[in-house]
Amino acid sequence: MLVRGAGAIGATAGFALAQALQEAPKEGFWKFVEKAKVEIEATRPTAQNLFFAVNRVFDAAKKSKQPREAGVEEAQNIAQEDADNCQKIGELGSELIKDGANIETHCNAGWLAFVDYGSALSPIYIASQQGKKVFVYVDETRPRGQGARLTAWELRNENIEHTIIPDNAGAYLMSQGKIDMMIVGADRIAANGDVANKIGTLEKAICAKEYGVPFYVAAPTSTFDLNCKSDKDIPIEERDAAEVLYQTGPSEEGKLEKILVCSPGSSAINPAFDVTPAKYITGIITEKGIIKPSMDIITRLFIG
Amino acid sequence: MLVRGAGAIGATAGFALAQALQEAPKEGFWKFVEKAKVEIEATRPTAQNLFFAVNRVFDAAKKSKQPREAGVEEAQNIAQEDADNCQKIGELGSELIKDGANIETHCNAGWLAFVDYGSALSPIYIASQQGKKVFVYVDETRPRGQGARLTAWELRNENIEHTIIPDNAGAYLMSQGKIDMMIVGADRIAANGDVANKIGTLEKAICAKEYGVPFYVAAPTSTFDLNCKSDKDIPIEERDAAEVLYQTGPSEEGKLEKILVCSPGSSAINPAFDVTPAKYITGIITEKGIIKPSMDIITRLFIG
Repeated sequence: MLVRGAGAIGATAGFALAQALQEAPKEGFWKFVEKAKVEIEATRPTAQNLFFAVNRVFDAAKKSKQPREAGVEEAQNIAQEDADNCQKIGELGSELIKDGANIETHCNAGWLAFVDYGSALSPIYIASQQGKKVFVYVDETRPRGQGARLTAWELRNENIEHTIIPDNAGAYLMSQGKIDMMIVGADRIAANGDVANKIGTLEKAICAKEYGVPFYVAAPTSTFDLNCKSDKDIPIEERDAAEVLYQTGPSEEGKLEKILVCSPGSSAINPAFDVTPAKYITGIITEKGIIKPSMDIITRLFIG
Repeated sequence: MLVRGAGAIGATAGFALAQALQEAPKEGFWKFVEKAKVEIEATRPTAQNLFFAVNRVFDAAKKSKQPREAGVEEAQNIAQEDADNCQKIGELGSELIKDGANIETHCNAGWLAFVDYGSALSPIYIASQQGKKVFVYVDETRPRGQGARLTAWELRNENIEHTIIPDNAGAYLMSQGKIDMMIVGADRIAANGDVANKIGTLEKAICAKEYGVPFYVAAPTSTFDLNCKSDKDIPIEERDAAEVLYQTGPSEEGKLEKILVCSPGSSAINPAFDVTPAKYITGIITEKGIIKPSMDIITRLFIG
């Protein structure tokens, strides 16, 4: 969790394998690199951008007579493409945002999660730069609080009006007509448009459908995994119960403290992601265009 | 928040007005008592049991030639009825619970929230006493964590197997077929069966309906407010943003610490309750029977 966020994980994983290529001994060079690849891939099983980047760097190195240099170059390409794609996602997604829109988002899919711009927040930033007034309801996103800690911080830095809400308040605000649209990021998207994202995304998507709130997913095509036919093929990372049972933050004296927020002795479970079936998703904003999950994703994004 | 939970709020409010009756001066007796009534009623605007108890104690005192004694007696009656009704709710509700059931609950509606037994947890306790095996998924219930702190503690005391889950994990567990039923409490129930309860209840009810998970509300008839025709008439208490922004709990050294869990400088909103429309509710377990919200509640519970 030193690195988090789809694009940031991808770029870092690319550079990690490039690093392994530098460190590999002449003797047993590919054995060393393959072992490193397996180790990197085991860190975040749900994150498709990790596999995407590691495979690209590996393949580029394999094809080249100078695998060390080719690996670094490909890792740099991946990072640059991530920034370019997120900018494009912002430009395309900003067209969906009306002046005065109230937008809810879950977790953090901004520039802290990518090389630059971000996925879900990029359309908001670009809409704001276009002079549109936007207000963002930020799900706090328990247990790790990426909304409350990261998205709120990014939005303050971008001077975008926002407020943090308990995850529990999403449906209530929708029932009061306070939410015009939702935009979230993605950790992996199956070939049928099912989307793995931070735990709680599924709940929001179901409620958004119920209240007629458009629900958009923003992600570069590097987040698609065509080997996954649907939700059932996407592995869900289970994380340590301590993330639920404890919270860490600064005390009033400014000292970092870890406190117990649950009854002592009780256990917790901590699935890090869930999968939102395509039927709840209004559209997926990619760098290649905004697609409806009902369209044939493979034809639309990956052929021609 | 020194007192919380529907039944506990009601019983305490009854005794509070009985106390005011003791303290009222001979001169301006009823003026003093009426002012106290208004003050008590302003403490928790969503809690119907508060209004129910205060009105009963007030009316009993008004009717009597010895209002001080009559007020205390009526307050004691209310507390005893609360315990009796919750026991009855447990007996009736336990019939809905199958051996081996996995039950999700939100917030705390156990004996910590009532005079005894509780509402939502009472059927679970009685099912367990009957020898049925039950497992409880406890929503942590941000922002105040009544599930993680209170329900988990109660269940440990009752030796009932359970685990705490982030509120965000509810729909995910339902999508995996892990939840057989949900039982929650209520803070106020309108005449059409719409239910005000802790923020986040609405979200769970919508998801439960989506996944075909039976969704039960358990509450004594004292929680019904026939003056509210539907959800629109129920006032929602807004609480301090600090409850979202900060968390308090013991550090590893056992010292109580208050820590910031959000980005510094960002605001938060904190609606304490939401209203679940009757259409999402499978049944309401009362001391007078289990009713479907589609039935005529007034005829079924309050006439004859």
